[in-house]
Amino acid sequence: MAETTLGQRMAAGEALLTAWSSIPEPLTTEAVARLGFDAVTLDMQHGGHSEESVLRAVPAVRMGGPHPIVRIPVGRFDMASRALDFGAECVIAPMVNTIEDARRFAAAMKYPPLGERSWGATIAMLRSGAADDGQGWLQTQNTRTLALAMIETREALAIADDILAVDGIDGVFVGPSDFSIAWTRGARIDPSLEDMMEAIALIAAKATAAGKHAAIYMVDPALVGRCYAMGYRLFALGSEYG
Amino acid sequence: MAETTLGQRMAAGEALLTAWSSIPEPLTTEAVARLGFDAVTLDMQHGGHSEESVLRAVPAVRMGGPHPIVRIPVGRFDMASRALDFGAECVIAPMVNTIEDARRFAAAMKYPPLGERSWGATIAMLRSGAADDGQGWLQTQNTRTLALAMIETREALAIADDILAVDGIDGVFVGPSDFSIAWTRGARIDPSLEDMMEAIALIAAKATAAGKHAAIYMVDPALVGRCYAMGYRLFALGSEYG
Amino acid sequence: MAETTLGQRMAAGEALLTAWSSIPEPLTTEAVARLGFDAVTLDMQHGGHSEESVLRAVPAVRMGGPHPIVRIPVGRFDMASRALDFGAECVIAPMVNTIEDARRFAAAMKYPPLGERSWGATIAMLRSGAADDGQGWLQTQNTRTLALAMIETREALAIADDILAVDGIDGVFVGPSDFSIAWTRGARIDPSLEDMMEAIALIAAKATAAGKHAAIYMVDPALVGRCYAMGYRLFALGSEYG
Amino acid sequence: MAETTLGQRMAAGEALLTAWSSIPEPLTTEAVARLGFDAVTLDMQHGGHSEESVLRAVPAVRMGGPHPIVRIPVGRFDMASRALDFGAECVIAPMVNTIEDARRFAAAMKYPPLGERSWGATIAMLRSGAADDGQGWLQTQNTRTLALAMIETREALAIADDILAVDGIDGVFVGPSDFSIAWTRGARIDPSLEDMMEAIALIAAKATAAGKHAAIYMVDPALVGRCYAMGYRLFALGSEYG
Amino acid sequence: MAETTLGQRMAAGEALLTAWSSIPEPLTTEAVARLGFDAVTLDMQHGGHSEESVLRAVPAVRMGGPHPIVRIPVGRFDMASRALDFGAECVIAPMVNTIEDARRFAAAMKYPPLGERSWGATIAMLRSGAADDGQGWLQTQNTRTLALAMIETREALAIADDILAVDGIDGVFVGPSDFSIAWTRGARIDPSLEDMMEAIALIAAKATAAGKHAAIYMVDPALVGRCYAMGYRLFALGSEYG
Amino acid sequence: MAETTLGQRMAAGEALLTAWSSIPEPLTTEAVARLGFDAVTLDMQHGGHSEESVLRAVPAVRMGGPHPIVRIPVGRFDMASRALDFGAECVIAPMVNTIEDARRFAAAMKYPPLGERSWGATIAMLRSGAADDGQGWLQTQNTRTLALAMIETREALAIADDILAVDGIDGVFVGPSDFSIAWTRGARIDPSLEDMMEAIALIAAKATAAGKHAAIYMVDPALVGRCYAMGYRLFALGSEYG
Ligand SMILES: [Mg+2]
Ligand SMILES: [Mg+2]
Ligand SMILES: [Mg+2]
Ligand SMILES: [Mg+2]
Ligand SMILES: [Mg+2]
Ligand SMILES: [Mg+2]
Repeated sequence: MAETTLGQRMAAGEALLTAWSSIPEPLTTEAVARLGFDAVTLDMQHGGHSEESVLRAVPAVRMGGPHPIVRIPVGRFDMASRALDFGAECVIAPMVNTIEDARRFAAAMKYPPLGERSWGATIAMLRSGAADDGQGWLQTQNTRTLALAMIETREALAIADDILAVDGIDGVFVGPSDFSIAWTRGARIDPSLEDMMEAIALIAAKATAAGKHAAIYMVDPALVGRCYAMGYRLFALGSEYG
Repeated sequence: MAETTLGQRMAAGEALLTAWSSIPEPLTTEAVARLGFDAVTLDMQHGGHSEESVLRAVPAVRMGGPHPIVRIPVGRFDMASRALDFGAECVIAPMVNTIEDARRFAAAMKYPPLGERSWGATIAMLRSGAADDGQGWLQTQNTRTLALAMIETREALAIADDILAVDGIDGVFVGPSDFSIAWTRGARIDPSLEDMMEAIALIAAKATAAGKHAAIYMVDPALVGRCYAMGYRLFALGSEYG
Repeated sequence: MAETTLGQRMAAGEALLTAWSSIPEPLTTEAVARLGFDAVTLDMQHGGHSEESVLRAVPAVRMGGPHPIVRIPVGRFDMASRALDFGAECVIAPMVNTIEDARRFAAAMKYPPLGERSWGATIAMLRSGAADDGQGWLQTQNTRTLALAMIETREALAIADDILAVDGIDGVFVGPSDFSIAWTRGARIDPSLEDMMEAIALIAAKATAAGKHAAIYMVDPALVGRCYAMGYRLFALGSEYG
Repeated sequence: MAETTLGQRMAAGEALLTAWSSIPEPLTTEAVARLGFDAVTLDMQHGGHSEESVLRAVPAVRMGGPHPIVRIPVGRFDMASRALDFGAECVIAPMVNTIEDARRFAAAMKYPPLGERSWGATIAMLRSGAADDGQGWLQTQNTRTLALAMIETREALAIADDILAVDGIDGVFVGPSDFSIAWTRGARIDPSLEDMMEAIALIAAKATAAGKHAAIYMVDPALVGRCYAMGYRLFALGSEYG
Repeated sequence: MAETTLGQRMAAGEALLTAWSSIPEPLTTEAVARLGFDAVTLDMQHGGHSEESVLRAVPAVRMGGPHPIVRIPVGRFDMASRALDFGAECVIAPMVNTIEDARRFAAAMKYPPLGERSWGATIAMLRSGAADDGQGWLQTQNTRTLALAMIETREALAIADDILAVDGIDGVFVGPSDFSIAWTRGARIDPSLEDMMEAIALIAAKATAAGKHAAIYMVDPALVGRCYAMGYRLFALGSEYG
Repeated sequence: MAETTLGQRMAAGEALLTAWSSIPEPLTTEAVARLGFDAVTLDMQHGGHSEESVLRAVPAVRMGGPHPIVRIPVGRFDMASRALDFGAECVIAPMVNTIEDARRFAAAMKYPPLGERSWGATIAMLRSGAADDGQGWLQTQNTRTLALAMIETREALAIADDILAVDGIDGVFVGPSDFSIAWTRGARIDPSLEDMMEAIALIAAKATAAGKHAAIYMVDPALVGRCYAMGYRLFALGSEYG
């Protein structure tokens, strides 16, 4: 794992870019990982990634340098643990719409006493060159890994402070496409919808106030500067598909 | 996607046959898709299909003409959304035994405000030739896709009207094998059990009364005519296995 | 399936060893299955196994003689049914920490009226040479398959009697690594921790008292004799990794 | 490997049927292998089988009982050795049109001094339960494996005696579709062409005279009896496709 | 297969563009196939494509409309036949440096009496909707498929007229990268090398004179017009990698 | 690629050990690559590796540090080029029994004017971080890559000097199992056969005299010292299978 964690870099104020990988093919991931992005996100929610492809693609990301991130399908917290066990550094959980969702996500991501993550990261430890230091792994992983909860509905916005208050949730990740559908009550899909920008700024402000991270999917790269000013530090920028 | 949807064809009174695919191999699916069936169902509950094979098999179905259907594992509503995102037109959810099951299934299948399906059907849009019209996709998918809830226990039968009343549930799919086990309280497996035929007729009647679709798995093709008369319009007919 | 079931062998007092498979490659499983172990466990929780690899690896295990076991990811009871449908004889569910977990696990593992397992084991029946006897399969599988609930937290220990009392739960499987983390409230990972041995003995005693099976993961083979004396009959011994 | 070899059974006068497998999916092979055929042929020339799928499908054949056969692509004698190394018992080489072809095929199939097969059948020995007896393997494999050269052109017919005289060639396998094209000089495809039946009978007669085996692909099962009378003992009967 | 063949379109004077696919992942091919190219070439020589990936990627190309082309590895004429059997319309053979190479390539590509292609295109016929018309397939394929021999060395240039004279060779495909290395006797890699342009024009002139097709790999799109004027009609334009 | 090449290390007198990989699963390769071996050899001749698995396993080797080596199947020189294009540093060709074999192998391994390797190492260049320097790649690869010809028959021994004299052949690799069969004219398989040790010493002496490398497969690790004294510098030591 990179000496400096993704969380440390976000906390230091860096503007970090993550590529978005939808193609479940490690050769593609390998190529994407060498394009200069700070991170690569393997998307299991809407992309073609599966349990198997994440297992194969994580080393393809790490080889090239970027931080490996996995977005799990809705509610699949079993996969959050497994993504970490395969060597991911950060997991993004979509549609965290209730406190219960946030708690279950945190539980899957963090070892006790903070959470309920189960011991068995043999593969991740091998991939990190830490195969022989279980005790060190136990003591450091809760701070080295990142649990980002997606805020992308009105419900989630309404309880964003509570989500951010959950121990083990390290930050929020805004999904502006879904948020625009929610904001317009199903009428429009527009990830750059001006109307909702105030709400999006509010989410970052809440994260900052809670001492946690804010990240966002960017369809229009021109908005990166504006969102950085709001407090966002990690930006997802398009997929291999275009 | 076919101009005419599966739902429109059922509503028009057609007797539609779906092949049942258990082999997670796109070459097999490709061959099955050219046999003349109206639809091909990729079975993830009892068959060998997985996240990965569904991703690969959906285009193999569409290429040949039939409507692509996916049966998800019990309770895996995350996979209902993903099946649609991979280009399936219809999803069958097994063992919908509670109203809560029906609501969660509908939520995963339909975009807001009807449900909570998340935006990101890049792959499905590509496969439908609709890659550039997000707004059109948002406005049409809820009516073009089909959510069929399996009725295959006494519990489900007892609340069939309530399941059918859930917004976003487009119809029911009867599983006569499981139903026969339920009907005989575990004593017999017999998908053609005469005893339960009245109940099976009742389910179709309830669906018709609710203005929704009725479908059924047929082990004995001789029963198709009888079930059509009951109101069933989509019939699953055996698998590659025999 | 072996004439004598894994459960019958445990009940007869045999000390059974299971290899632990993390590599999702049937050729590796095939080799492991010929090493002389009584069983091979395909690990989907922390290992690299997926839906797809379990489908391919189960015959590789059976070919060599051992009993095929699958450990599912946390809470993935849909996969418990599917593992059986693919021909596994025993399923281990990790982190069974509530009565509700135990009930859902049992429901997925057993046909009605004991549970809610859905009919459709075409692949398993093919693999068992029982393709033509559905009625026989229905009547025998509930006693031929094994549902082992993992006890690996303080919560689970506290309700072990209740878990063991759930109809359809055939026994417990102790995870001493997680248990050591729980026991030390997150301070240490030590699967041979002397401190917790009394608790571990207690779990076996409870299983024996309930007329059910006790199994355990062994990191230190030297402890096998001691655990056998406690009542454990199935011992997992290391993985291909180390 | 079956106690009695395929060659011994042919020599004993049995009429043996081989299924023809084109689908590179072990689950399909597994099902085909349980249908009661004496052998299953994995087709790499015209079917979808590849190096990888042969590796996975051979155990699926053996598990079910039949003799595993591989048809290699034209001239790919490297793959003849590898098919044996993966556990095939018999290899069919298509388009053996010159003595040189026959010699190269025999060389790849037989250990010295008969041929030039290279040592390294670790996988096949594992699959045969012969992992510990290298010396025994070396001394028995040349007689336990079968090299069948396809006769399917006028050139091959003209030198059939010479092909059959090559040490290490165990018999011939007639391809009547290609033979009909050759016979009609490209005008017709008709594997049951009456015109060529005399030639086909002649091939079997030559094989019998040479003390070697004769096999044939059958599109019309009604011809099996007639071909058996000619001296053919192994009959390929259709594929999963048709 | 498209009503109008690739060869007919080249003969009609169209300037055709082929995408170049190196990633052995059908989802990527599917996306590439919808970008508007006239053809997609699956590269087995330098790209990541294998027997297996070609089998899966050909339908992904056809689905989107383009003509499917396969470049085989050097000298792998067995794969030329198999590419056609999987549904490719055109095969490019690299490094055709001798008349013998050209003859073997033509033999693998064309049915008798023109060549020695073996009968068994079940998969291709299925994919072309021609499953039931073997006789029609036999009579039309030799003119509907294209064998393009790569001219990319001084040796090949020297015998280009002889290569073009081989019956069954439908045209030439120039590899300017290799040609530049040859031209500079190993000193430079420069696919746009001005020095060699006269030779490249000569190759097209020879093809035109022979009544056959000329195609070329283009690293610099600016050269397309100039090469079209020379007589080239099919242009390969970059890969997913670059 | 490692700064120091495998060839440079052998020339410097190091005793280098290569692991031998037969399992076509990148996760296994990844684990093997971290065991401390100097190199990992992916075996396509007798092991389970295929075109596809080599593509996936090479980065798994490089990630861990060792030099990636591929052993190709007999006579598959197309695959020698492709192994290099996938990022292998060294290729071992089995059964190089004629000067023609040696010349074809060298031709596939080296760019002109030394050989006939074709340009297109996009994947290897990406994997080496050399994606933008084609000219540098062209000028350095012939000395950075290693072509090792296997000497494992009496014929090969008889012409070892001629094989070693072929430009582009960088050394020899002795296969003592096949050599023992050859030495005993098919009577025995014994890779430690004392009788042949003089011949084995002679091969190393010839290589040293020619200024080229000598490598050998070791079944008995106790012989490493003795072989090092003969001049061998690279030693293959057992496979994952045992
Ligand atoms: Mg979203
Ligand atoms: Mg059911
Ligand atoms: Mg545990
Ligand atoms: Mg033939
Ligand atoms: Mg070239
Ligand atoms: Mg050898």
